[in-house]
Amino acid sequence: MKKHNFSAGPCILPQEVFQEASQAILDFNNSGLSILEISHRSADFVSVMDEAQSLALDLLGLKNKGYKALFLQGGASTQFLMVAYNLLNKKAAYLNTGTWSSKAIKEAKLFGEVVEVASSKDKNFNYIPKSYSIPEDVDYFHCTSNNTIFGTQMKEFPPTSRPLICDMSSDIFSREMDFSKFDLIYAGAQKNMGPAGTTLVVIKEDILGKVSREIPSMMNYKTHLDKESMFNTPAVYAVYVSMLTLRWIKSNGGLAAMEKRNQEKADLLYAEIDRNPLFKGFAAKEDRSAMNATFNLVDESHKETFDKLWKDSGVNGLNGHRSVGGYRASMYNALPLESVQVVVDLMKDLEERI
Amino acid sequence: MKKHNFSAGPCILPQEVFQEASQAILDFNNSGLSILEISHRSADFVSVMDEAQSLALDLLGLKNKGYKALFLQGGASTQFLMVAYNLLNKKAAYLNTGTWSSKAIKEAKLFGEVVEVASSKDKNFNYIPKSYSIPEDVDYFHCTSNNTIFGTQMKEFPPTSRPLICDMSSDIFSREMDFSKFDLIYAGAQKNMGPAGTTLVVIKEDILGKVSREIPSMMNYKTHLDKESMFNTPAVYAVYVSMLTLRWIKSNGGLAAMEKRNQEKADLLYAEIDRNPLFKGFAAKEDRSAMNATFNLVDESHKETFDKLWKDSGVNGLNGHRSVGGYRASMYNALPLESVQVVVDLMKDLEERI
Repeated sequence: MKKHNFSAGPCILPQEVFQEASQAILDFNNSGLSILEISHRSADFVSVMDEAQSLALDLLGLKNKGYKALFLQGGASTQFLMVAYNLLNKKAAYLNTGTWSSKAIKEAKLFGEVVEVASSKDKNFNYIPKSYSIPEDVDYFHCTSNNTIFGTQMKEFPPTSRPLICDMSSDIFSREMDFSKFDLIYAGAQKNMGPAGTTLVVIKEDILGKVSREIPSMMNYKTHLDKESMFNTPAVYAVYVSMLTLRWIKSNGGLAAMEKRNQEKADLLYAEIDRNPLFKGFAAKEDRSAMNATFNLVDESHKETFDKLWKDSGVNGLNGHRSVGGYRASMYNALPLESVQVVVDLMKDLEERI
Repeated sequence: MKKHNFSAGPCILPQEVFQEASQAILDFNNSGLSILEISHRSADFVSVMDEAQSLALDLLGLKNKGYKALFLQGGASTQFLMVAYNLLNKKAAYLNTGTWSSKAIKEAKLFGEVVEVASSKDKNFNYIPKSYSIPEDVDYFHCTSNNTIFGTQMKEFPPTSRPLICDMSSDIFSREMDFSKFDLIYAGAQKNMGPAGTTLVVIKEDILGKVSREIPSMMNYKTHLDKESMFNTPAVYAVYVSMLTLRWIKSNGGLAAMEKRNQEKADLLYAEIDRNPLFKGFAAKEDRSAMNATFNLVDESHKETFDKLWKDSGVNGLNGHRSVGGYRASMYNALPLESVQVVVDLMKDLEERI
């Protein structure tokens, strides 16, 4: 049975990527060797790393604008720490829009004062705070562009004179934007970019060198910039599959085309959530994420019936996160519209059965 | 042409592992999904992580002895830092046997006093220091069991009353030993254990909790122990391929069988290095590594001829590291004896041509 994979991450990637990624395990670039057994210093892999870094900057429109791209290990969770280690001198401002923002704040507090400019915790993070001001004396402002767990997404970013830092783990490469307003963007690969195990960091170099503390080598952005992501052995295969996925995004129309497809999918699903009297959306309408749609049954007693329906139909990963309950449909770049239609039809089906 | 892969790491893994690892990219466990697109919280992957951790302890003979196994990101380079962050209160002792020891020492110095008990830097790290004493008042003693770059290996470990910590990145699972004498063992996967992108940490839990500094979440062993390597999204595929490789080690006789095969390969190559007047070994004989044999031409003018010989014969990765020059044959678990015989025959071939 064909699977419809709504997993929140790691998540669906393009089928073409899986084919090529599988072949490279047996024979990479007709070398007679698996990509898993070649040196990260080999010309073949250095070229993969270069292309991945170049494609990332290219797709974000940040080439020749003072930015560099890194592929590091440790996930966004390590970036919560590295951002503060490298950039927090005295005080930083954070917007708290959910679990990941909260974790970033926790790590930053080890390095200095954190001003939480606003939080949506009062309503279980079902909206994005809008009216807040960012102090002029902070070292940077940090926000989370998309909240995987709660299904909210920042549609606009506040104007600020301070360096703007954004965790884009769950919506990077999903929409067009003027990315040059950001000074540092990071994203775990395992949503729109690739498999788990590598993390993209896009950094405007001139924001570095402004803290006086000694930074351990692996925590120091400068270490990795100087060695072009090869200070230590990188996550070779995760970088390779990310490179394949970035190639796919580019050859399929880049971010403009991704955004259009993603909006079509989101519109289809949210329309049904709003129409169908059995369901209700979790996130505030104006802040709804195009990546992760969170919704609940109005009457929880239909849970067993609906769960059986979708599980019997090849749908995977529709369970909501425990913080929200209900359902979460993650509709990353590689998810076809057809899969969303399947869920919409099942929601209608449930309505007819009740 | 059949390839003979002597790459120092990432390096050769068993062919059976490549086959299964390639298939899982297309369809994992007959789920209809790629292993790259499933949630790390799925039952299928949780079972992979559990098995990998269990096999690691089992192969080392450390089950039910107060140890836990973790699969983390960031490589041994991150362990240089985490060891000190978690365990260095005031003073630690380090044995300096090469590049990796030196890097570990550099990171430790950020957290306290480092006593370098001995160093072989005086002879470009071509031997393992033997007569040194470990102060009784250090928080731990740290050493590197095998030095990939210089081709030396510790055959014995010093008796000490202090916690014994060892970087075993390049010889873990290659030989039998009483591993219960160690309190913390770490190893980047990309030699005998799997592909680049995950790092095994085996830790005796009772050594923790003795420093007072605040430790960032991702740097704290306790964080990862409490969440059984799932505090943040692990490197799913690298852990999976490591699990397959550990299964292969176990089903092929465990560490006793690995050690026997590895010794046969090393004996074959070192015998030729010592016999053939064109070559000379780099490392002191009693400290020669069974994993990485380093050797040089007596007369460098034969380099071009020898390089062409091995490159034309499907041999990969025989170039020495720039710190030593000449050649390095890395003979990890999965390298067949046949590949070593090919190199030995080429060395004889060169002798006949000269």
